[in-house]
Amino acid sequence: MNFSVIRYILCMLVEFMAALLAVPTLVCLFYGEWKDALIFAVIALLCFSFGFVFGYLRKPVNRTFYAREGFVITALAWIILSLIGAVPFTVTGTIPNYLDAVFETVSGFTTTGATIMTDVNSLTDMHKGVQFWRCFTHWVGGMGILVFMLAILPMAGGYSMHLMKAESPGPSVGKYAPKVKDTAKILYSIYIAITLTEMICLKITGLSVYESMTLTFSTVGTGGFGLLGSSILEYSYATQTVIIVFMALCGVNFSVYYFLLTKKFKEAWHIDEMRWYFIVMFGASVLIAWNVVRNGVIGSFGEAFHHSLFTVASIMTTTGFATLDYNVWPQFSRTMLFLLTCIGACAGSTGGGFKFSRIIILIRNAKNEVIKTIHPKSVQRVYMDDHVVEDTTVKGTNAYLAIYTITFLTSFLLIAFFESFNVIDLEVFDFETNLTAVAATLNNVGPGLNMVGPTGSFSEFSWASKVVLIFDMLAGRLELMPVLILFYRKTWRR
Amino acid sequence: MNFSVIRYILCMLVEFMAALLAVPTLVCLFYGEWKDALIFAVIALLCFSFGFVFGYLRKPVNRTFYAREGFVITALAWIILSLIGAVPFTVTGTIPNYLDAVFETVSGFTTTGATIMTDVNSLTDMHKGVQFWRCFTHWVGGMGILVFMLAILPMAGGYSMHLMKAESPGPSVGKYAPKVKDTAKILYSIYIAITLTEMICLKITGLSVYESMTLTFSTVGTGGFGLLGSSILEYSYATQTVIIVFMALCGVNFSVYYFLLTKKFKEAWHIDEMRWYFIVMFGASVLIAWNVVRNGVIGSFGEAFHHSLFTVASIMTTTGFATLDYNVWPQFSRTMLFLLTCIGACAGSTGGGFKFSRIIILIRNAKNEVIKTIHPKSVQRVYMDDHVVEDTTVKGTNAYLAIYTITFLTSFLLIAFFESFNVIDLEVFDFETNLTAVAATLNNVGPGLNMVGPTGSFSEFSWASKVVLIFDMLAGRLELMPVLILFYRKTWRR
Repeated sequence: MNFSVIRYILCMLVEFMAALLAVPTLVCLFYGEWKDALIFAVIALLCFSFGFVFGYLRKPVNRTFYAREGFVITALAWIILSLIGAVPFTVTGTIPNYLDAVFETVSGFTTTGATIMTDVNSLTDMHKGVQFWRCFTHWVGGMGILVFMLAILPMAGGYSMHLMKAESPGPSVGKYAPKVKDTAKILYSIYIAITLTEMICLKITGLSVYESMTLTFSTVGTGGFGLLGSSILEYSYATQTVIIVFMALCGVNFSVYYFLLTKKFKEAWHIDEMRWYFIVMFGASVLIAWNVVRNGVIGSFGEAFHHSLFTVASIMTTTGFATLDYNVWPQFSRTMLFLLTCIGACAGSTGGGFKFSRIIILIRNAKNEVIKTIHPKSVQRVYMDDHVVEDTTVKGTNAYLAIYTITFLTSFLLIAFFESFNVIDLEVFDFETNLTAVAATLNNVGPGLNMVGPTGSFSEFSWASKVVLIFDMLAGRLELMPVLILFYRKTWRR
Repeated sequence: MNFSVIRYILCMLVEFMAALLAVPTLVCLFYGEWKDALIFAVIALLCFSFGFVFGYLRKPVNRTFYAREGFVITALAWIILSLIGAVPFTVTGTIPNYLDAVFETVSGFTTTGATIMTDVNSLTDMHKGVQFWRCFTHWVGGMGILVFMLAILPMAGGYSMHLMKAESPGPSVGKYAPKVKDTAKILYSIYIAITLTEMICLKITGLSVYESMTLTFSTVGTGGFGLLGSSILEYSYATQTVIIVFMALCGVNFSVYYFLLTKKFKEAWHIDEMRWYFIVMFGASVLIAWNVVRNGVIGSFGEAFHHSLFTVASIMTTTGFATLDYNVWPQFSRTMLFLLTCIGACAGSTGGGFKFSRIIILIRNAKNEVIKTIHPKSVQRVYMDDHVVEDTTVKGTNAYLAIYTITFLTSFLLIAFFESFNVIDLEVFDFETNLTAVAATLNNVGPGLNMVGPTGSFSEFSWASKVVLIFDMLAGRLELMPVLILFYRKTWRR
């Protein structure tokens, strides 16, 4: 383990954080929130000085860099940035408890959107800069902090690929250009283009510039922090429709956009997971609309379809916005939404979850295994996007399912355990609340069902449970491996 | 596909069924239930004649037999036997609805113990023969119907191994003797020895011969059908303790007993899954006892431990007996029991569930994959019982997890869908009921939580949901592959 290069890159990252913190500082200044502006500025300055002294001035001599270092840096980077990003919330007094602030910041960077705030409206009214920062974390985390840094900073050496691999979602990393730096630039260019387009669209539907910006950050990062306690309910149908479109677009594998830009329409069309993503999204919306109308929750099918499409898109892309409290919808709809929570979006998108491509690989491999039991000597291959999926990817995906399941169920049990110290838990922290709380955080969706449903919050959980959920959010966003490696003793050998 | 050999073996099985049906006939005669006796006798006679005419008299010319035939025969055998075994219930009028009777019989043969009966007591009082048959199905299904046939009938040819493979639980089949027939005999000898021992022990604790026999069948088959609506609550502590011991013993890999019998104590001790099985059983019991006492459900720790050990052993061995209604226990206990439901017992036991050995393989393989991400070129092997686990077994186990998860979640969604036609489902068929109903059937446990908890029944589900749950019970008992293969088109090619 090359500790000096880890120190160096992490310090560069802290410096980079200073630049990020400058943005809300400006917003505070614009809205005349002087105290908040000062707080953001001081934290930014401290970050910059720290990074400058311990990073920039002490370049590492040994630049050896392997996958191991990549994973460790990625995991530590996300933890450190969350710890720093939480400070403004506590110092401004908007979230007095630091652990809660860390929860909120991790939820922001990992684009989960799970909140411990019970009064979001007051933040929008009194602390516009803090609220901006809260949504901005979604935007930064969406495409990846390290990928962002790779795209901007002049970084020599071969470590960029390892960092990108560790941070990018999905079973394999899409490379668009020979240099990782160029790939990162392409990704961020597409991301920024989508961001600007949505801002303009939202502005046209009648929102203020502030609302357009913040909601856009939450949408394109597939985060889900809203400006109002009622999430997206109070906005017009036009605004809601714009958000549906951009949520859906950001849950798509960004390779599709790259292929479209480079006019490789055939390749774009041949991405299996995109087709399944849209088929499932449409199918689930129709079924839920039918279920909701049949049970008399909503009168007309048209209105029901609008809301079910919004909800399905929100859950599948792991955004977590809501136009209605789907927790009170009939059981079939709730079950469907729970399952969609776990499936998530496409690999290589800003969305979280288990990812469509993984499910495609698992199903096709499972089918091969069924065939193998009756033709034991046949050689079966898994195909995706008209290519053979490498054996190591198939094995890795299978192991991912095992690790995912173990993490999921262990967290579920731990939360039930920690809450058993609290209260007579059968009523408050019921089976569904605990289960969906884990599903909502591990898949970076945000809201779950019952107490953590779209109108609820995570504030009531004990501190120990919050730590578990913070772990789940990070593990989910970084797709388990980088976070788990931190706990493997041999990782830390020199 | 060799259809003639399939026909032949299935007909032999129907003949074998006649012999099984003779047992409850005798019980009916003994208790003077003349009408019931006649019904059983007629059905047995019909089975015998059918098997004799279409099987015994028409031996297959072509004896080609591969894994494919083995899987298909196993799946069809279980379906056919359940369809026949259900007839007495309907004709005697004890379960008038035939689908319900099939549900009950599948639940019996697969040793699930999930019941659609709302008044079990009346059966014990008025139809002792039928009740005996109900519990006897557990005993037959526990060690496997085909294994039973292999042990008894003189069957030539190489197909015995394929049949045994398809029916035996666990990632790999234990072979104790060069000939499969001898292995089957050894297994059934151990099984019968355990059965007789428990009967004697139960008799000593004060039960009648009838009670001892029926409860023993339900225990050693790890089934869970009881004689009373209150399950095991009304029996003495001594009886309950005997049942705990024998449930626990029957959830152990039968290899352990074989090694003990042949004085290979070292090999017996080196079976990893047995050690983990007992560690988890003890640990979970202590935690649940603590949780139950802390929440004031039970006063003394000693009493709480007795009931928690009973419940944990019952769930882990997938028996499904209950001494108390654990559905009203605090959330942590319920969560723990739900997870234990999914884990199940050891491979090569009469218990169901995912199996400890699979979990061990998955966890060790997952650990290897974590190591591989940081040492990409290292070769990692999975060890179990001090041996290297073959790569195909590891791959198969991983695929099993995928298929298991997909089956589980699809069933969950389907049930929510079918029940949405029924009623305002949010109240009756809630998230927990549906989820645990699937878990309880797919893992052959029996009771779940809420409406399908230990005091509830499966009677309220719609017929479509019952079909799904019947599928789950069969798929769970036969470990998915044989049942899934029936739906694969190419299986049926000549």
